[in-house]
Amino acid sequence: MARKNKKISCAILIIGNEILSGRTKDQNVSYLASWLNSSLGIKLEEVRVVPDIEKKIIKSVLSLSKSYNYVLTTGGIGPTHDDITSKSVSKAFKKKYSYNKEAFNILKKYYGKKFNDPRKKMSKMPKGSRLIYNPSSAAPGFIIKNVICLPGVPSILKSMTENLKKFLKPGVKTYSLSIKAQTIESKIAKGLETIQKKHRKLVQIGSYPFFRLGKIGVSIVTRSSNKNSLQSCHKDIIKMIKNKKIKTFKGN
Amino acid sequence: MARKNKKISCAILIIGNEILSGRTKDQNVSYLASWLNSSLGIKLEEVRVVPDIEKKIIKSVLSLSKSYNYVLTTGGIGPTHDDITSKSVSKAFKKKYSYNKEAFNILKKYYGKKFNDPRKKMSKMPKGSRLIYNPSSAAPGFIIKNVICLPGVPSILKSMTENLKKFLKPGVKTYSLSIKAQTIESKIAKGLETIQKKHRKLVQIGSYPFFRLGKIGVSIVTRSSNKNSLQSCHKDIIKMIKNKKIKTFKGN
Repeated sequence: MARKNKKISCAILIIGNEILSGRTKDQNVSYLASWLNSSLGIKLEEVRVVPDIEKKIIKSVLSLSKSYNYVLTTGGIGPTHDDITSKSVSKAFKKKYSYNKEAFNILKKYYGKKFNDPRKKMSKMPKGSRLIYNPSSAAPGFIIKNVICLPGVPSILKSMTENLKKFLKPGVKTYSLSIKAQTIESKIAKGLETIQKKHRKLVQIGSYPFFRLGKIGVSIVTRSSNKNSLQSCHKDIIKMIKNKKIKTFKGN
Repeated sequence: MARKNKKISCAILIIGNEILSGRTKDQNVSYLASWLNSSLGIKLEEVRVVPDIEKKIIKSVLSLSKSYNYVLTTGGIGPTHDDITSKSVSKAFKKKYSYNKEAFNILKKYYGKKFNDPRKKMSKMPKGSRLIYNPSSAAPGFIIKNVICLPGVPSILKSMTENLKKFLKPGVKTYSLSIKAQTIESKIAKGLETIQKKHRKLVQIGSYPFFRLGKIGVSIVTRSSNKNSLQSCHKDIIKMIKNKKIKTFKGN
């Protein structure tokens, strides 16, 4: 498949009181962001975390689905009372919240005689959804319009991304290069600004100070969808660093 | 100071391409969420992550500051070209983006002869801001209207929360209890739903499956601002679990 030279954007909507209470740290954003870019050239442009409250989910789904090519939701598609994503997305798009026959059969086969009501609930979703198969624990995710609903458990989510791929149009990939300078930001700020201005059309330069393992430094990250411009900008940064007699750390 | 029995809400706005690219995992949300609740009884109700793009920052600041009592921003207040939070917040509130005299003097004293332009930039902020002192690296955060701007580096952010406290009105604290059941969600879903209905006015029950270190289980978390209701709901859950002859794991 020829990759079109077009920007494709997405947002992630995390649905879960456990993130907002501080109890759980999200682990899906960085994985999905990297996977979406490296596998499909889809750029993550916004993340929202909202509680398990229907009207908040509906509002965010509608707002994000208008602003980006795709919205990936995580969490809230399990069997318990606090799993309200499927119902909320149904309401957002005014689709009937009902049993999906294929999902129902997948789960029936998987659970056999133990296919109880809470498990049946996992096959309820907006009418017209297409399934995203789940090779870990059977209960599928789904896609309706441009919204993709995935589970919150990181290992299950990861196992499903390969099956999600076919539903998403690929875009232009963002490449990045980075260098770790043994310096502080204020010593390179002017130099970076000059280089950023020179490459402003095609490259974004990010400057990220770090303090870890007793080392102080700055990671300078260049990002672009154009490999030549990226290389050229990265070289300018290396040159500037060398001119200032600043050493670098190994690794990225 | 008497704690008023009132709900105080907040949102966090993370400003940073490095989170959206997947390069960096946010570490501030879970810390701030826990700290805000335990120290001040302020409830985190939404999180957004946006890129280093002025119009996106402005839009989010205005939208969140209308919806919640407080908005805490993280990131983008350093010395480099990609640090545009202060300028963007100034524009959002139509305040002059200019040197804050006190911040300028703090940084001048801290850096001495090495007080260069990029460092001076860190004292520029919306006119009328009040400073949040930074005991780690001098450059202060600030508060303007109901928006509090903090740095993105977790260790620096943490060192500033004590100085932030005096600017925030305390609200009603949320307490939580939890139990780890050696079961799967579908076996307790009906029981939890019944208990949730009984306690629907004052307690929220969350059910979180986990699969780690070879153990499969469900964390059942109850949250409430009313300690008696919380205890009562938690006891109902323990009773339900026992009735089903489900064992529990130690610890939370």
